[in-house]
Amino acid sequence: MNLSSPTFPLNAWYAAAYDVEIGRTLLARTVCNQQLVLFRKTDGSVAALEDACWHRLMPLSLGRLEGDEVTCGYHGLVFNAQGRCTHMPSQDTLNPSACVRSYPVAEKYRFVWVWPGDPAKADPALIPDMHWNHDPAWAGDGKMIRVACDYRLVVDNLMDLTHETFVHGSSIGQQAVAEAPFVATHGERTATVTRWMENIDPPPFWAGQIFQARGYRGKVDRWQIIRFEAPCTVNIDVGVAETGTGAIPPGGNQGDPKLSHRSHGVNGYVLNTITPETDRTCLYFWAFARNYLQGEQRLTHQLREGVSTIFREDEHVLEAQQRAMEARPNHTFYNLNIDAGSMWARRLIDGLVTKERPGVPVIPIRAAG
Amino acid sequence: MNLSSPTFPLNAWYAAAYDVEIGRTLLARTVCNQQLVLFRKTDGSVAALEDACWHRLMPLSLGRLEGDEVTCGYHGLVFNAQGRCTHMPSQDTLNPSACVRSYPVAEKYRFVWVWPGDPAKADPALIPDMHWNHDPAWAGDGKMIRVACDYRLVVDNLMDLTHETFVHGSSIGQQAVAEAPFVATHGERTATVTRWMENIDPPPFWAGQIFQARGYRGKVDRWQIIRFEAPCTVNIDVGVAETGTGAIPPGGNQGDPKLSHRSHGVNGYVLNTITPETDRTCLYFWAFARNYLQGEQRLTHQLREGVSTIFREDEHVLEAQQRAMEARPNHTFYNLNIDAGSMWARRLIDGLVTKERPGVPVIPIRAAG
Amino acid sequence: MNLSSPTFPLNAWYAAAYDVEIGRTLLARTVCNQQLVLFRKTDGSVAALEDACWHRLMPLSLGRLEGDEVTCGYHGLVFNAQGRCTHMPSQDTLNPSACVRSYPVAEKYRFVWVWPGDPAKADPALIPDMHWNHDPAWAGDGKMIRVACDYRLVVDNLMDLTHETFVHGSSIGQQAVAEAPFVATHGERTATVTRWMENIDPPPFWAGQIFQARGYRGKVDRWQIIRFEAPCTVNIDVGVAETGTGAIPPGGNQGDPKLSHRSHGVNGYVLNTITPETDRTCLYFWAFARNYLQGEQRLTHQLREGVSTIFREDEHVLEAQQRAMEARPNHTFYNLNIDAGSMWARRLIDGLVTKERPGVPVIPIRAAG
Repeated sequence: MNLSSPTFPLNAWYAAAYDVEIGRTLLARTVCNQQLVLFRKTDGSVAALEDACWHRLMPLSLGRLEGDEVTCGYHGLVFNAQGRCTHMPSQDTLNPSACVRSYPVAEKYRFVWVWPGDPAKADPALIPDMHWNHDPAWAGDGKMIRVACDYRLVVDNLMDLTHETFVHGSSIGQQAVAEAPFVATHGERTATVTRWMENIDPPPFWAGQIFQARGYRGKVDRWQIIRFEAPCTVNIDVGVAETGTGAIPPGGNQGDPKLSHRSHGVNGYVLNTITPETDRTCLYFWAFARNYLQGEQRLTHQLREGVSTIFREDEHVLEAQQRAMEARPNHTFYNLNIDAGSMWARRLIDGLVTKERPGVPVIPIRAAG
Repeated sequence: MNLSSPTFPLNAWYAAAYDVEIGRTLLARTVCNQQLVLFRKTDGSVAALEDACWHRLMPLSLGRLEGDEVTCGYHGLVFNAQGRCTHMPSQDTLNPSACVRSYPVAEKYRFVWVWPGDPAKADPALIPDMHWNHDPAWAGDGKMIRVACDYRLVVDNLMDLTHETFVHGSSIGQQAVAEAPFVATHGERTATVTRWMENIDPPPFWAGQIFQARGYRGKVDRWQIIRFEAPCTVNIDVGVAETGTGAIPPGGNQGDPKLSHRSHGVNGYVLNTITPETDRTCLYFWAFARNYLQGEQRLTHQLREGVSTIFREDEHVLEAQQRAMEARPNHTFYNLNIDAGSMWARRLIDGLVTKERPGVPVIPIRAAG
Repeated sequence: MNLSSPTFPLNAWYAAAYDVEIGRTLLARTVCNQQLVLFRKTDGSVAALEDACWHRLMPLSLGRLEGDEVTCGYHGLVFNAQGRCTHMPSQDTLNPSACVRSYPVAEKYRFVWVWPGDPAKADPALIPDMHWNHDPAWAGDGKMIRVACDYRLVVDNLMDLTHETFVHGSSIGQQAVAEAPFVATHGERTATVTRWMENIDPPPFWAGQIFQARGYRGKVDRWQIIRFEAPCTVNIDVGVAETGTGAIPPGGNQGDPKLSHRSHGVNGYVLNTITPETDRTCLYFWAFARNYLQGEQRLTHQLREGVSTIFREDEHVLEAQQRAMEARPNHTFYNLNIDAGSMWARRLIDGLVTKERPGVPVIPIRAAG
């Protein structure tokens, strides 16, 4: 990882916080190497300012929120929610340059999104679809974890679920995941990996879910439809159904999931959006939403904490990989068949970065010749 | 802060320790990036040597003090208080170059001062006046704290007490400090900021002091006369008196404090001398001396511990500012009216540095054009 | 210490682990800046592979050992004990380049040795003689400690035992060690320092040993015969005998120890081999073997733990020296008479490094002109 090269585009919406994290206090958070202070205004909407006073760089997050204004905790300069300085001690006129940067903010799908690039390009229509996270037909919750790795390693991780067999053997992994064939396709901003596993024993996690929801024990058909949206969102349609009941579309893994019904199964969405915090660390926001037993708070709680354990296994692997890569900065990587999905994701990321900073070469993970 | 540029002069006296810190043991301390070992000789005077054995650089402070000589804790070379090697194992003649650097030392005003520059220039008359710290007419005590910031940020902090309102709101801060006008003047080695606040409610700290000492509750006249002496000493004449009793000199804040009497008030000196330890850390020596209730040991104790709390608030702010500045090494700073005193202090420091190392540019904090 | 210059040869056997440390699990260890994974095969012999999966650099030591093969803990690639990949998920043919480096390994004298350089040169005859560590005529045990210093500082430390007087005063140090004359000689790969101390009071450690083993209290003749074998092994023949009983060879310290008998004494070998882990850290393997009271397990235990304490005193000194040297990277060192042994050791190390990398200058410790 060459740290002088950009690893992420700036013109994109990035999740900065879960909705519940932001209230009437000052929250410091770093997004794309930029230090922000976030707070909820009196009208309930969220503001994001540069977290450094114009005067002496004191972090504004160490100051005080009063109404919709932030008072610096060192010399008392006051900034409004647009970042303009509205008061300076012992100063009759205010320097017109006295302001801190403010960032476009949007709150959608239970995340607070910020746009660290050109504000003129901050189109809310570009926020990735994560509607399952607040759709009443789905129930669930999630967390944010800070992982000490390049956010792209998390994307790689999610685009190839082969790793479930080796990293998550006690919950969702099983030999079938590493063995079943898959299909990788891509669009202009998206890449998709689809894997169908027919007539298998469910792994421990899914065996428990389908028994709780449907009282069923036995062979299942299992699916994983991984959909990446550049630069850093991965939503995964997962589930199992009684084998042979129509979950698997005609034509097997070549088929269109819309053609299949899943009425004898349980379905969830693993929602992931991974924000680059710095070049070497990321904020990993995830949620698990399900379309069965939606009213059971206890199951929501259990799933959030149980899935947490699975994510911790990934964290361990991802941080080890980051350290190994930093120790060998010029290593050439070889791609396997299983990397087809992440290769497409990387190309889409590289395309966004290059478009934004044309003169600067992207550092790719090179494929074997 | 460009770390390759000098941020402090070497030809100056710097406090290395409080008098009580140095006894018949070996004390390691770093001053201006130079590692020293300090100890008290059998005659009671203090010696300061380079803390690295001539032979293998072993810190002498890990060795043993015997009489006025230090034995290295690795191979047993012995150095006298002038830094000359007087014994080497298995060696009949001593290499004439075998010595470690010794530093000029002076003990005055309860501090042990060292001169890291050219010893020929180490004139004791240049030790800054801090006589209140051992004058029998004054009572008090202080501490040393290590702060992870450039020593000049502490000087800035002390030269503008506006920050009391925002940083020390529960003790000495009050809106009046941020609002009252002040006058900044300077001499060849000194810069002074004078602020008078007439007919105000005393802040919590001073309300307590004037009631204890004089039994008085009510409006006061308050003063702060901040005097910087280059490169790093700031003594502040502070206090309050019953309003209208003559504390404020004729002509208000333009006036000369010598013209006023303070017989109906309480007066203290906040003594500060801030030694650069490294480019990014400093040793902050402070004391609070008062001219009322001098015999009350309990008050001395209370004040030392209470004032400690106030200094910890500064420490928090100063270290946050240092981190923010390191994250933005090329940031241009703008100065406000409140920065008049620190601007003069910075110019005097820069002048000393430039005089000493003519070819090397000082890294200033730039004023707005 | 210029970190861009090599400080150790690669074509050498280095101890990577004590025999007991390696079993049927995966052990990560760094030798000469190279990360290894070590494990015992089903036939009991040891394998050493590069600790980074060919695919994504995941440390193999975080994977699983099955039979004589290692499965990567991320995507399940499998490597055999020769480092060749034998399985990849979802891949019919294996890329012929898919292997990780394997290292020559030998197990001898209770250590597991690896050869980080050219495998063709890995001649087991070059393993340094440390036979006392498994010879039935000798009893003893040892430990490995990780020390944060250049391994050459440990060699320096062992080649001049003058330091015992100042570092280990409570156990093996005594003034006689710093005062007694010594003789330094060298061969093509070895350097030897011999010191005889006649008719002295034994230091606390040896007084205890000779009383336990021989019931003797009184004056002793003491010897230290330090033998360095390049690049990093130092075996020290140490002991005391009733004074005048023939331990000291005719001709005193010029004599050949083979000419003397030690039948009225106690004899031990301090065995040391110091593996560079990185340029600034080392793995220090040591053992103490004795030829008296060999059957007393309790004494073996006591000695291992007691000698541990002595090594911790060295660790403290060595790490202080390393920090001091890093703070003064361009310091010129002067050598004293006591450094004769370590100077020869350094020259032999430098010779090996230069032979291996002819164009690259070695960073010497310069002698006084």
